[in-house]
Amino acid sequence: MGYSVAVAGASGYAGGELLRLLAGHPEFDIRTVTGHSSAGRPLIESQPHLRSLAGLTLQETVPDVLDGHDVVFFALPHGASGALTDELRNVRLAVDCGADHRLADPSDWAAFYGGEHHEAWTYGVPELLVARGADPGGADPRPAEGVGAGDLPGKQREALVGASRIAAPGCNASTVALSLAPGIAAGVIEAGDLVSVLAVGPSGAGRAAKTHLLGAELMGTANPYAVGGGHRHIPEIRQALRGAGARGEPTISFTPVLVPMSRGILATSTARIAAGIDPARVREAWERAYADEPFVHLLPEGVFPRTADALGANTCLMGLAVDEAAGRVVVVAALDNLAKGTAGAAIQSANIALGLPEATGLPVDGVAP
Amino acid sequence: MGYSVAVAGASGYAGGELLRLLAGHPEFDIRTVTGHSSAGRPLIESQPHLRSLAGLTLQETVPDVLDGHDVVFFALPHGASGALTDELRNVRLAVDCGADHRLADPSDWAAFYGGEHHEAWTYGVPELLVARGADPGGADPRPAEGVGAGDLPGKQREALVGASRIAAPGCNASTVALSLAPGIAAGVIEAGDLVSVLAVGPSGAGRAAKTHLLGAELMGTANPYAVGGGHRHIPEIRQALRGAGARGEPTISFTPVLVPMSRGILATSTARIAAGIDPARVREAWERAYADEPFVHLLPEGVFPRTADALGANTCLMGLAVDEAAGRVVVVAALDNLAKGTAGAAIQSANIALGLPEATGLPVDGVAP
Amino acid sequence: MGYSVAVAGASGYAGGELLRLLAGHPEFDIRTVTGHSSAGRPLIESQPHLRSLAGLTLQETVPDVLDGHDVVFFALPHGASGALTDELRNVRLAVDCGADHRLADPSDWAAFYGGEHHEAWTYGVPELLVARGADPGGADPRPAEGVGAGDLPGKQREALVGASRIAAPGCNASTVALSLAPGIAAGVIEAGDLVSVLAVGPSGAGRAAKTHLLGAELMGTANPYAVGGGHRHIPEIRQALRGAGARGEPTISFTPVLVPMSRGILATSTARIAAGIDPARVREAWERAYADEPFVHLLPEGVFPRTADALGANTCLMGLAVDEAAGRVVVVAALDNLAKGTAGAAIQSANIALGLPEATGLPVDGVAP
Amino acid sequence: MGYSVAVAGASGYAGGELLRLLAGHPEFDIRTVTGHSSAGRPLIESQPHLRSLAGLTLQETVPDVLDGHDVVFFALPHGASGALTDELRNVRLAVDCGADHRLADPSDWAAFYGGEHHEAWTYGVPELLVARGADPGGADPRPAEGVGAGDLPGKQREALVGASRIAAPGCNASTVALSLAPGIAAGVIEAGDLVSVLAVGPSGAGRAAKTHLLGAELMGTANPYAVGGGHRHIPEIRQALRGAGARGEPTISFTPVLVPMSRGILATSTARIAAGIDPARVREAWERAYADEPFVHLLPEGVFPRTADALGANTCLMGLAVDEAAGRVVVVAALDNLAKGTAGAAIQSANIALGLPEATGLPVDGVAP
Repeated sequence: MGYSVAVAGASGYAGGELLRLLAGHPEFDIRTVTGHSSAGRPLIESQPHLRSLAGLTLQETVPDVLDGHDVVFFALPHGASGALTDELRNVRLAVDCGADHRLADPSDWAAFYGGEHHEAWTYGVPELLVARGADPGGADPRPAEGVGAGDLPGKQREALVGASRIAAPGCNASTVALSLAPGIAAGVIEAGDLVSVLAVGPSGAGRAAKTHLLGAELMGTANPYAVGGGHRHIPEIRQALRGAGARGEPTISFTPVLVPMSRGILATSTARIAAGIDPARVREAWERAYADEPFVHLLPEGVFPRTADALGANTCLMGLAVDEAAGRVVVVAALDNLAKGTAGAAIQSANIALGLPEATGLPVDGVAP
Repeated sequence: MGYSVAVAGASGYAGGELLRLLAGHPEFDIRTVTGHSSAGRPLIESQPHLRSLAGLTLQETVPDVLDGHDVVFFALPHGASGALTDELRNVRLAVDCGADHRLADPSDWAAFYGGEHHEAWTYGVPELLVARGADPGGADPRPAEGVGAGDLPGKQREALVGASRIAAPGCNASTVALSLAPGIAAGVIEAGDLVSVLAVGPSGAGRAAKTHLLGAELMGTANPYAVGGGHRHIPEIRQALRGAGARGEPTISFTPVLVPMSRGILATSTARIAAGIDPARVREAWERAYADEPFVHLLPEGVFPRTADALGANTCLMGLAVDEAAGRVVVVAALDNLAKGTAGAAIQSANIALGLPEATGLPVDGVAP
Repeated sequence: MGYSVAVAGASGYAGGELLRLLAGHPEFDIRTVTGHSSAGRPLIESQPHLRSLAGLTLQETVPDVLDGHDVVFFALPHGASGALTDELRNVRLAVDCGADHRLADPSDWAAFYGGEHHEAWTYGVPELLVARGADPGGADPRPAEGVGAGDLPGKQREALVGASRIAAPGCNASTVALSLAPGIAAGVIEAGDLVSVLAVGPSGAGRAAKTHLLGAELMGTANPYAVGGGHRHIPEIRQALRGAGARGEPTISFTPVLVPMSRGILATSTARIAAGIDPARVREAWERAYADEPFVHLLPEGVFPRTADALGANTCLMGLAVDEAAGRVVVVAALDNLAKGTAGAAIQSANIALGLPEATGLPVDGVAP
Repeated sequence: MGYSVAVAGASGYAGGELLRLLAGHPEFDIRTVTGHSSAGRPLIESQPHLRSLAGLTLQETVPDVLDGHDVVFFALPHGASGALTDELRNVRLAVDCGADHRLADPSDWAAFYGGEHHEAWTYGVPELLVARGADPGGADPRPAEGVGAGDLPGKQREALVGASRIAAPGCNASTVALSLAPGIAAGVIEAGDLVSVLAVGPSGAGRAAKTHLLGAELMGTANPYAVGGGHRHIPEIRQALRGAGARGEPTISFTPVLVPMSRGILATSTARIAAGIDPARVREAWERAYADEPFVHLLPEGVFPRTADALGANTCLMGLAVDEAAGRVVVVAALDNLAKGTAGAAIQSANIALGLPEATGLPVDGVAP
């Protein structure tokens, strides 16, 4: 019969993507969907592409409606899930796609979000490298046994096994963290002067009506935002890279640019090659990290991904170049912000937590052109 | 009556933009337009938006057709103008929008373009800061002694006065050079570890039919190219920044990303704040450099440009943030690759060379939304 | 010195386009700009592309602020201008870009808009054919002298000379009316079974934040709306075609489709060839109607326009095919909804009303690609 | 084990979509993929989104390579498959996504395509209504006597059972045929004066490099083509509607418009309500036709589809309005030209032909936003 599932915030973009993927998942039964202003209305009105779920009706987003399901996914605006999740008494697994349970450090939360800080849940990026002893955002700390010689780092996947509370990542944050963690963990790049610039689609900003997100404002133009260190995913990236074993505090110049595509993130991340490292061997760190991953693919030398190649898929595609003249590694990573960046990561993490095969229900091929 | 003008390569994108701006220029009379495969055909077939020039017919791109005009603009593929411009006997001013006359150093040409190297012409970016004694790509070196009081750098504008041969800039190169030159010239940023990532529209790649530039390949997706140090504008940027007075050799990690807009460049450029520099005073270098410029505008603190705001205009809009946590300055610059990036720069430079008011015929307002 | 001008509703899309065109108009001095929620703020905050007007500040949209200017342009939401324009005591020319003064028939207003009906002002489509005795929406009725043999219809231009109150057209309505009026006026097509389908950009829907106009909703997709006869421009089209001399009541199936471009209308309009008409001579009606028009261009046989060719211009480009197998004429018309569709039409009409050369300050070339 | 499958033309857009869907189909084993200029290269180079098929290499498109598979799908340019399919000796089922086997009438082929005419295969639109005795394009005529009670028309599905040669439909043609067939078959609309205007993405035009299909030509603009009766899908539509039981010869004014989305067709089709028909009962014909269809959905009154809702899915979504003032029915249909329009139709038809459950491997939910 499968696990009974509820999706809170089912009328938004992340909620819709959760449902699209869950509808094709053989082990999850979508029992309940909730909305806010759309409660009481048929789901199909807000998600007209989900023809297979045309029979569902949105309910109120309240604890009584959500409690009692095996699994509850939260796709609510930041700040909305924290209080709600405290009320769940009888839910085997809760996965929050919002930010409320991502940051371990209350001062990070205060500086970038504000309002009440909630405990960090297990971070839902299975492929993220984790130094022994560290756990990014982790509620399931692993024993510290040193990152000495011969010790390969582990992966966040290990922390997710059996987890009951999972914080799905920020889409920009996980793209950048996956891009840089292998070099950080292997010590082949410096953590102290990272630069990431991202081309992103507006669906990551959610479905609330805002003038600057109107189609007429975004078509035919590129719009930067949160320039100069203010983006909320910065502390999440730094937390993840510390967890990957950064020597010294990671610092990152991070600039997202809205471009005219509804979905997708293309993150160009660069880092200085660490002193004494042979540039010819830098690439190995990424090859080693992702060689066997089903959903994170390092492309051959000279090949770089486009976001279309990951559209609708749970895949992060990555290309890497070593620019010796500039002294920097350039990693270009593409993923679908709603799929691998949010809903796919949530379901993949849930699969692991529940002991299901990790790839269950998750597409690896993109929809292109 | 005005100057008689010919445009070589009038059937392409840069040629079309030259004609659009020249059609509204009160001092230039468009007498001759030339094409390649379209020679003999009405211009309006290849430039259906230029209704005011519907009477023109494309001629062959040969010296006999071009010679004898007061001004000839070349908008040909790289490598095509070099030999042709050598044949002009009776042309007061030639402006090349191709790369053939941009690079002073033959080894740069050999490394990034190949084929015969041609002499560098006066570089057509009037607002570019130029250290005393330096001239980027310049065939018209200026004496090192001061123009104006004190030790302020000059501008490339001075070299353009009276010039007879001008190399219009690469669109990406001039965007980045204008973004970074003020900090370089003032010594407030380091030249040795620059990073630029650009969101660019495909019109900059020209009108030749190539599979990877098809609409179906580019819509709804972001596509990086020339990743890892291979882009041809890199030596041009370094040359410009050396000219602006870089202490030490400029190095830059440079990544362009094609995004779904027909025109526009949004360049996000970052540089380390130089040692001992007060972050609070970094911005002043840009304010000083562009305070009186009609076409390069530094936006107020906290405001950043989008490409739509410069669409069709000869304007480069720039926003700047100092990210103290990352130790970097972030400069976001927006321009229209065909207008300010190519055709506008060419006409602005021609205005200066001929002694016309610099802004003649050049729009400052963009077409938005 | 020129006429003193005020623009009411200057923070929206139509207001911005009025200002962009007025800024380049040699006979108009922009003295006053007004907004609603943005009153008190610098214009440049809402219109960041209008660099040349960076010194202006938005004032309140109230009669005291607007009265006393030679010319006032209204770019307000439908229903907002009617009461306001009644208060103007000392304004030589008022041009309303909203719908309030377009419809002569109160029952049309009641059926499609609702609320108080205001008198119809002179309709601002100079090139529209007008049968002798008819005036679409007109406050300046012309004497009826019969549409007998040898009588060419006049044009709406005549009614605009000396007008003091002008209703700029709906962008979709004028595109369709211009497409069909020549055939209607000449009697070569039937008025009784017209079909128009329009691909339109979302800027025509205005700048108010609405969920269904978000970029993520509109990119990568085509969205029909107001299907089945409900669009508010239908009575305006019918009124214009009656004015052009339709035999019998015009009826039209009208379907607009939002497509992913910020600006532009591409209207495909078809009509049955009238009984007894030689298909080979149908085209002549359009040739005759627009032969000498500076801003409405019939393209050669086999050539059809794209919206890019009219982007930013005051031009309506039209292609026509006679489909004998289907028994229908197909007219494809392209224009920029904000330029020729709204602000350009308003200024062109104002030029005529004030006795200025009709084309003053109006671009004819588009911005492409 | 499943059926062994080859895809000819696997490096193009239709071929890529076939592979994307086949990769998720439990009964088909992709054994062979062929290309033309890309033969010998890894498939992943031309289809970088198909990560699950990264191990495949393109072979030559020759009979020897293709023969012997249980099923061969052809996704070749028009005119290329005809000769090739004649050479297959040992293929249980061939499905041609090109036009070569669609048209039964050689004169239609001569008029719209030219070159050698090949026999019509069974038309691959299972949901298409078929009058008793008629079979659109059919090589497998069914007896005229009743399938089911009374005088209801049958569907093309019946002709596909056990078929060995199938012609997948033209994407535009099937969209329009599905839109109009219910009304035609029921006699509630006239067949003689149909009008369809389609907003289409450029992927339908294939992957060959052509200037007019460049991204810079198509972004931000709407471009009509084949205006006035020249589009090659017109005879296919008329054949399908004749098959559906049109009283009198169907005639259609058909205008496609390229809009800036990589995929998708939004067809707005209108037809006159037949004389004597009660407008209030027109809708019933469509309700009856598609009530039980898994992949063709009539939306509720007042609701109309957008192409995004069918993106990547095998779904055709349809909205219908009766415009009594205009005397016309308006049907707006959305589908993904590569999915339901081509590859999905091919696989759905193959499922039927082979006796598999019709919906096997075919997604019903779209990827939106």
